[in-house]
Amino acid sequence: MSIPDTELTEDAFLGGLLTLWQPRRGYRAGLDAVLLAASIRAEVGQSVLDMGCGVGTALLCLGRRVSGLSLTGLELQPDMAELARRNAERNGLEAEIVTGDIGTMPATLRQQRFDRIIANPPYYDRGRGTASPETRRETALGEALPLADWVAAGARRLEPRGTMTVIQKADRLPDLVGAMADTLGSLVIRPIAPRAGRDATLVLVEGVKSGRSPARIAAPILLHRGKSHSANAPDFAPNIEAVLRNGAALD
Amino acid sequence: MSIPDTELTEDAFLGGLLTLWQPRRGYRAGLDAVLLAASIRAEVGQSVLDMGCGVGTALLCLGRRVSGLSLTGLELQPDMAELARRNAERNGLEAEIVTGDIGTMPATLRQQRFDRIIANPPYYDRGRGTASPETRRETALGEALPLADWVAAGARRLEPRGTMTVIQKADRLPDLVGAMADTLGSLVIRPIAPRAGRDATLVLVEGVKSGRSPARIAAPILLHRGKSHSANAPDFAPNIEAVLRNGAALD
Repeated sequence: MSIPDTELTEDAFLGGLLTLWQPRRGYRAGLDAVLLAASIRAEVGQSVLDMGCGVGTALLCLGRRVSGLSLTGLELQPDMAELARRNAERNGLEAEIVTGDIGTMPATLRQQRFDRIIANPPYYDRGRGTASPETRRETALGEALPLADWVAAGARRLEPRGTMTVIQKADRLPDLVGAMADTLGSLVIRPIAPRAGRDATLVLVEGVKSGRSPARIAAPILLHRGKSHSANAPDFAPNIEAVLRNGAALD
Repeated sequence: MSIPDTELTEDAFLGGLLTLWQPRRGYRAGLDAVLLAASIRAEVGQSVLDMGCGVGTALLCLGRRVSGLSLTGLELQPDMAELARRNAERNGLEAEIVTGDIGTMPATLRQQRFDRIIANPPYYDRGRGTASPETRRETALGEALPLADWVAAGARRLEPRGTMTVIQKADRLPDLVGAMADTLGSLVIRPIAPRAGRDATLVLVEGVKSGRSPARIAAPILLHRGKSHSANAPDFAPNIEAVLRNGAALD
């Protein structure tokens, strides 16, 4: 069941504030999980559920930044869930990692409500292409569960006025915003672009349970400063640098 | 049926390249119609339908910028349609203005297909508030026809590979993008914000008939330069200034 250690890498996140084991091959945690966590406003005592937590990247990034959260992760793949548990322990963070399916939702979670739900759902739209030959990668990237069902399952687990925040590739915005508008309100759509003037590559959408405010399209989060890449020089925008190197919040 | 001239104003658009009669009271054409027209790429010989053309602002702005288009406007309110005809003539532009309902679609239009469809549909969501006491304003701003039906009616009138472009208040993005994703493809979502770093106030969404490209979230169009308003100084961004003063295209 477990992945042998020789098939794992140990990677530093948030400038070394967090160290995570993850499979050498297949889906690898990246900027999206880190940005998702950095976008969440949460405070001591609040509960957080990461739906499809993988090795725990977003959940543990958030837990590292905000003390005193109650952290829960739900992950379909047992070996990934085991890594998430190991990663929580490795970083001295308490987290309940539940192995189970979002579609059916484990009974232990069906009895709970959360203040914050975060998700970095599979990007890959099954309707549009071919499956990945690698099973683990396919499960993490393929869309076993339609995005709308994913969002609906999350909305049911929210406390009144709780928020659900999802990060997706920008091209999934129509599906994502449709799904979130069906079950949540007060949507905030926040594109993430490599630089000023460029198309967004990712998008963060936040919704509020029973929210009634008009939807907002926020200014894009710009990952890099300047108009083009300067060779070899790291050119992250200052707010992104603060997230990646110091574990800061976005904004 | 006609509005008396004393109830009209004569307003310059595109730095005086276009002069339009419009009712003194009620819905008044503004930046949104001008930006919509400026966002359209079109060339000689192509056909354009403005669905809900009002006094013809967007249609005639586009016709002024691009020569040799076949211009058609559809407008529900006979007095506004009459003004649109008068405005076309006043500016030496040939345009067929059809009085009729988008929901039922006049027979003369049902036999036609268009290369470009543009729309600035009523912003006001009937489900969310109270109707305007002024009938003409209410018809222009209220949502007699749901946005999804508006978009579907347009999609049916498009030539293969034709585009439909809609401008809306930013808070309607979830509805708009949902409607457009149902009937069109290759969506391009282009937020319009007052300045860098601010929420968008408007959004342009373009879709292609039978388009299959992934959706894009483009960089926002920024109306003003700088971070805040400098007293009394006009501070439109150069590309917006070029649209408003010289009738240029966006981008």
